[in-house]
Amino acid sequence: MSDKVPYKIYLEESEMPKAWYNMRADMKNKPAPLLNPGTGAPMKAEELEGVFCKELVAQELNNDDPWIEIPDEIRSFYRMYRPSPLVRAYCLEEKLGTPAKIYYKFEGNNTSGSHKLNSAIAQAYYAKKQGLKGVTTETGAGQWGTALSMACAYFGLDCKVYMVKVSYEQKPFRREVMRTYGASVTPSPSETTEIGKKILSEHPGTTGSLGCAISEAVEVAVGTEGYRYVLGSVLNQVLLHQSVIGLETKAALDKYGIKADMIIGCAGGGSNLGGLIAPFMGEKLRGEADYEIIAVEPASCPSFTRGTYAYDFCDTGKVCPLAKMYTLGCDFIPAPNHAGGLRYHGMSSTLSQLYADGYMKAVSVPQTSVFEAAEFFARTEGILPAPESSHAIRVAIDEAKKCKETGEEKNIVFGLTGTGYFDMVAYEKYHDGKMDDYIPTDEELKESLAKLPRI
Amino acid sequence: MSDKVPYKIYLEESEMPKAWYNMRADMKNKPAPLLNPGTGAPMKAEELEGVFCKELVAQELNNDDPWIEIPDEIRSFYRMYRPSPLVRAYCLEEKLGTPAKIYYKFEGNNTSGSHKLNSAIAQAYYAKKQGLKGVTTETGAGQWGTALSMACAYFGLDCKVYMVKVSYEQKPFRREVMRTYGASVTPSPSETTEIGKKILSEHPGTTGSLGCAISEAVEVAVGTEGYRYVLGSVLNQVLLHQSVIGLETKAALDKYGIKADMIIGCAGGGSNLGGLIAPFMGEKLRGEADYEIIAVEPASCPSFTRGTYAYDFCDTGKVCPLAKMYTLGCDFIPAPNHAGGLRYHGMSSTLSQLYADGYMKAVSVPQTSVFEAAEFFARTEGILPAPESSHAIRVAIDEAKKCKETGEEKNIVFGLTGTGYFDMVAYEKYHDGKMDDYIPTDEELKESLAKLPRI
Repeated sequence: MSDKVPYKIYLEESEMPKAWYNMRADMKNKPAPLLNPGTGAPMKAEELEGVFCKELVAQELNNDDPWIEIPDEIRSFYRMYRPSPLVRAYCLEEKLGTPAKIYYKFEGNNTSGSHKLNSAIAQAYYAKKQGLKGVTTETGAGQWGTALSMACAYFGLDCKVYMVKVSYEQKPFRREVMRTYGASVTPSPSETTEIGKKILSEHPGTTGSLGCAISEAVEVAVGTEGYRYVLGSVLNQVLLHQSVIGLETKAALDKYGIKADMIIGCAGGGSNLGGLIAPFMGEKLRGEADYEIIAVEPASCPSFTRGTYAYDFCDTGKVCPLAKMYTLGCDFIPAPNHAGGLRYHGMSSTLSQLYADGYMKAVSVPQTSVFEAAEFFARTEGILPAPESSHAIRVAIDEAKKCKETGEEKNIVFGLTGTGYFDMVAYEKYHDGKMDDYIPTDEELKESLAKLPRI
Repeated sequence: MSDKVPYKIYLEESEMPKAWYNMRADMKNKPAPLLNPGTGAPMKAEELEGVFCKELVAQELNNDDPWIEIPDEIRSFYRMYRPSPLVRAYCLEEKLGTPAKIYYKFEGNNTSGSHKLNSAIAQAYYAKKQGLKGVTTETGAGQWGTALSMACAYFGLDCKVYMVKVSYEQKPFRREVMRTYGASVTPSPSETTEIGKKILSEHPGTTGSLGCAISEAVEVAVGTEGYRYVLGSVLNQVLLHQSVIGLETKAALDKYGIKADMIIGCAGGGSNLGGLIAPFMGEKLRGEADYEIIAVEPASCPSFTRGTYAYDFCDTGKVCPLAKMYTLGCDFIPAPNHAGGLRYHGMSSTLSQLYADGYMKAVSVPQTSVFEAAEFFARTEGILPAPESSHAIRVAIDEAKKCKETGEEKNIVFGLTGTGYFDMVAYEKYHDGKMDDYIPTDEELKESLAKLPRI
């Protein structure tokens, strides 16, 4: 460890971003607009404001301003757990015997254990500012629900969480954390909504999906006075808030004169990846620098690598607007053996457009190889990673091994989105050799994609 | 939040302690020596070295040197997660409406989630340096076992953990974390040791105790080539390593010219408390300053407040040396309804001597009031605290409320030893109204104390 770069690069509080960076402002091809499923016309602000908070709608539709100031109240909360460290993975490099230099931005050292808090606190703030009583949301693996519960407790907002049933059952402790923060948690699909009842009658015994849970949360938000719906990924506004991850990462690298060669992030709906790559992608879009950017998704839910770029519903219940994105079809539900998050059928429309335009790559990885990487990482670098984050670890390790063969001293940066303390059922399965790698067949995907709406 | 003190006081890496502080050097009445249970004579280094690592024995017996240099390898590991923040609890103060100023030293932001890592990495380092193959230990709530597993993975040592059966059953995920780090975990009492078999035959269906688990771990260490036993609390060496907590706390307060009035820590075996108070107690012992120091223990395991100051076995199996300490009797096992750690029958002999000499106070608190404080704290300050840490939170809140009545602007400092992510079964019980407050009767304690060894 004689290198000049410290084990952890910490920015000063004063070096924390004062504004979020909006990639869309620098995109020549803007992400396609959300469409009204009834009329096929682009959603207007007024229409979206029935579902989302007013200021968040403005952020959602803002394709022009590259910088959006972070309100003081949010920056004040960020200071409780940010800046987060950019860690030089010296131990991992040594164990791999690679000439590559590996860095990871660790977003798990906050009380929700993941990067989700960055957007949760922003969305809770705008809801409070608008004078709302509460918010509804869905959660898959539980990170988003945990983060939002915490953010709502901070601002004194009510919080109703619809949790994908398979996660609710696999992760009873996540539910208790949310209850500790005062949130109510309902397994989805549930009998508490019309759409939940419909899905349950059509698919009895379903383990649920993010798409179902979104439909339920939206139904409740729209039907309850003083409530709005908030979403933890996919949307432009969420990627915007998450840009703090990338901005801090870039500032930390710049501080030591390091130029990243490759940036790797896991991708479910795209919020972490979109945030991590934001300023790097900005330079790429403006032709100022080049970076190899890799999205890593689970082989069991491969929207980038095996999906279609088309308009689709954001939710299984088909009550939400249509978004143009890489999608597996809104009826797609990953196999129940799939552990953790990254189970959304689609992908952020901003990232989808960037992928379609060739600004980034995508790979999919099977889950046992992900847990192998997770365990190796825990033993080497100490941190017990979330399964989601471990997708990025898998590919970072693979790329570092390639460097060992070629002798290239690449600077590899990846996002470590959170910790795996609530994922021990999945780790146990892995330890006991009970985890498998079910991957959807071409026929299954074809069937699910055949139902895409015709626009 | 217009006060000049930031929400989190972070020291620079360069301000981290370079040496551990050894309170014993400044004590007029030294802690009583460990005794050989066979001969009744003070244990010699050679005798202890069959059980413990050589350098740790030297630290254990060192009552003279006030400062012991921290080896570079340990400081290098410390830099991965230290300095830890001293947090000004602005939100808590506001919610309580107290004129008191509340600070907490947060030790949960490392990958084991608790302060235990401070000593685990030191002990693993000395074991490695001695050329050992592995170590054995016990764990109660699981924090120590987790920390040691992680430390052993870092230095490539084998790690055998005996886990108190009630915790093993209540916290299956802790076991998985330890397995992830490559440790083997056995519920105690077990059939793998002679002492385990004996305890099981005498107390069938016992839920175990730290005392039993210690006996088993020691038996295996002594009987296995290349192994030694390590302990996560109680011993002088552990308090020594934990002094980094107090040293950083004092440095952070000094940086802002803050004089603590009251220092509050939870106490099981005393490692966190002994570490937190170390430099403050040093000033008190040297007559340089005064502080009110409060140990908080569970009403279900009240060694300070209802125990006897006497020589007792450190373990239920009566294979370990005798220590003079406040004890409930080595056969005492807390009621199974007791959640979390702080379940050891005795107390650090250093702290016991200081308590006997009037340098500190102790209070005991019932567990439902502890969980009430824990939930209140989580909703107010964001962090989900460990049940153990929440004992200190309970008393800090009570003291801050007293200040509200008297108008005193006391500076209250407490130790937040860890996070509660693995304690959600206990939180669930609390949420569901299924937690009660069993407190041992005078008769029970009398019976257990009647069996103290006669020295």
